[in-house]
Amino acid sequence: MERMVLDDRRRRADRARQVADLLRRQILQDSFPQGQLPLEAALAREFDTSRNTIREALDLLREEGLVERCPGVGTTVAAEKYPHGLHRLLGLAETLHEHGQVTNQVRTMTLMEPPAQVSQRLGLPPGEQVVYLERLRSLNGLPLSLDLTYLVRDAGEPLFDADLANNDIFALLEGIAGQPLGTAELTLEAVNADPHTAAALGTPRGAALLMVERLTHLADGRPVDLEFIRFRGDRLTMRGQLRRTPDEERAWP
Amino acid sequence: MERMVLDDRRRRADRARQVADLLRRQILQDSFPQGQLPLEAALAREFDTSRNTIREALDLLREEGLVERCPGVGTTVAAEKYPHGLHRLLGLAETLHEHGQVTNQVRTMTLMEPPAQVSQRLGLPPGEQVVYLERLRSLNGLPLSLDLTYLVRDAGEPLFDADLANNDIFALLEGIAGQPLGTAELTLEAVNADPHTAAALGTPRGAALLMVERLTHLADGRPVDLEFIRFRGDRLTMRGQLRRTPDEERAWP
Repeated sequence: MERMVLDDRRRRADRARQVADLLRRQILQDSFPQGQLPLEAALAREFDTSRNTIREALDLLREEGLVERCPGVGTTVAAEKYPHGLHRLLGLAETLHEHGQVTNQVRTMTLMEPPAQVSQRLGLPPGEQVVYLERLRSLNGLPLSLDLTYLVRDAGEPLFDADLANNDIFALLEGIAGQPLGTAELTLEAVNADPHTAAALGTPRGAALLMVERLTHLADGRPVDLEFIRFRGDRLTMRGQLRRTPDEERAWP
Repeated sequence: MERMVLDDRRRRADRARQVADLLRRQILQDSFPQGQLPLEAALAREFDTSRNTIREALDLLREEGLVERCPGVGTTVAAEKYPHGLHRLLGLAETLHEHGQVTNQVRTMTLMEPPAQVSQRLGLPPGEQVVYLERLRSLNGLPLSLDLTYLVRDAGEPLFDADLANNDIFALLEGIAGQPLGTAELTLEAVNADPHTAAALGTPRGAALLMVERLTHLADGRPVDLEFIRFRGDRLTMRGQLRRTPDEERAWP
């Protein structure tokens, strides 16, 4: 008997997860008029499942911060979640320009002697100074990411006089270097927000963050910009396309 | 006075975050012999900061599940974290073959009439059945991801007789279809683990998960495989390279 109850619970939890994944996709695609989700009964019919399962699915989405649920009002989309292109190397304002205005609050900006790991990744001799920059980045006034940036000195020093509040570093770097950026290696991870990061991003302690480490090179191959970016998981997705046959196996011109 | 204390705390938290990000990178690169991190005093010298800051940085990494700290033993790497290639479309066993053996526990496998969203994404008429599959995937016996998969019927049905425990679906699909896979669109997000997912993955409730939604097409362009994958954030990273000039602006042969 107890076993049956457990099996039922697991079945419902599994089913709720399936439903939540499909609703999440619709929310990200902005598929609900006025951000209003259908009533529980309608969703139960649509997904051919019980109202309890639908309620459990909506609870999962509420815990992710994607929807709000109010008695009498129903379920509404809580906040927009924005797609960051993974198909090419773009700054935040560039990739989100259709969604609103990116502004940056500079928390720290200083010339410093970096730890050995930073020197190595930027290809600098030990002891050579870099520009260190910490920015809180917002879209339409709401915090989106906390960025820690190490820049080689010749590229970074002119930024002390630049309008960092309203510009991507990428665009500024290309102006300073007189050449476009080339490639970047990036690593993506999911981490829980520590209390200080959570406070800066205005998110609950422990909230899931999308963490990006990115080393960017100029077109001539020189590494110039090492960044550690913590995106709020409830406000940003990464979107891209992969090929089964990698580029290097294709015939390039 | 109180203000000064707050500023000091914030400064130390900011500094701890910087140190943690650099140590995280070293851990992922397996840079510490026998997984043993240097002593606090040595790290304090290396990063030119206080032992309190180092302690706070190591606490951040411990909360991420990356290191363990024991009195007398010091700080050790807790568990390996594996890189999943973002440079091409690969199955889990393919991408992690250097790191060990991927095994899959099939939790559910059934023929079902899918919700409208699934039919649409797979390009199926309403009511056409799909194969639904739920797998818990492990590397060297430790849970790595929970995968929910919807497959078009002609590609999915032969899988009822396949060795799903020891094979990637990608490899099996190519055999069934008699053609390679082509491209996949994917979306990456960070979400907190709900209690049931956490239990399945053997991770704390609320742990950060890297969530991937991926629609895979055969080489002829037909979508065949829609997956929702939850990776344990403490066990997997995604690694790739981006170009400033996108492929489509390059001259293709």
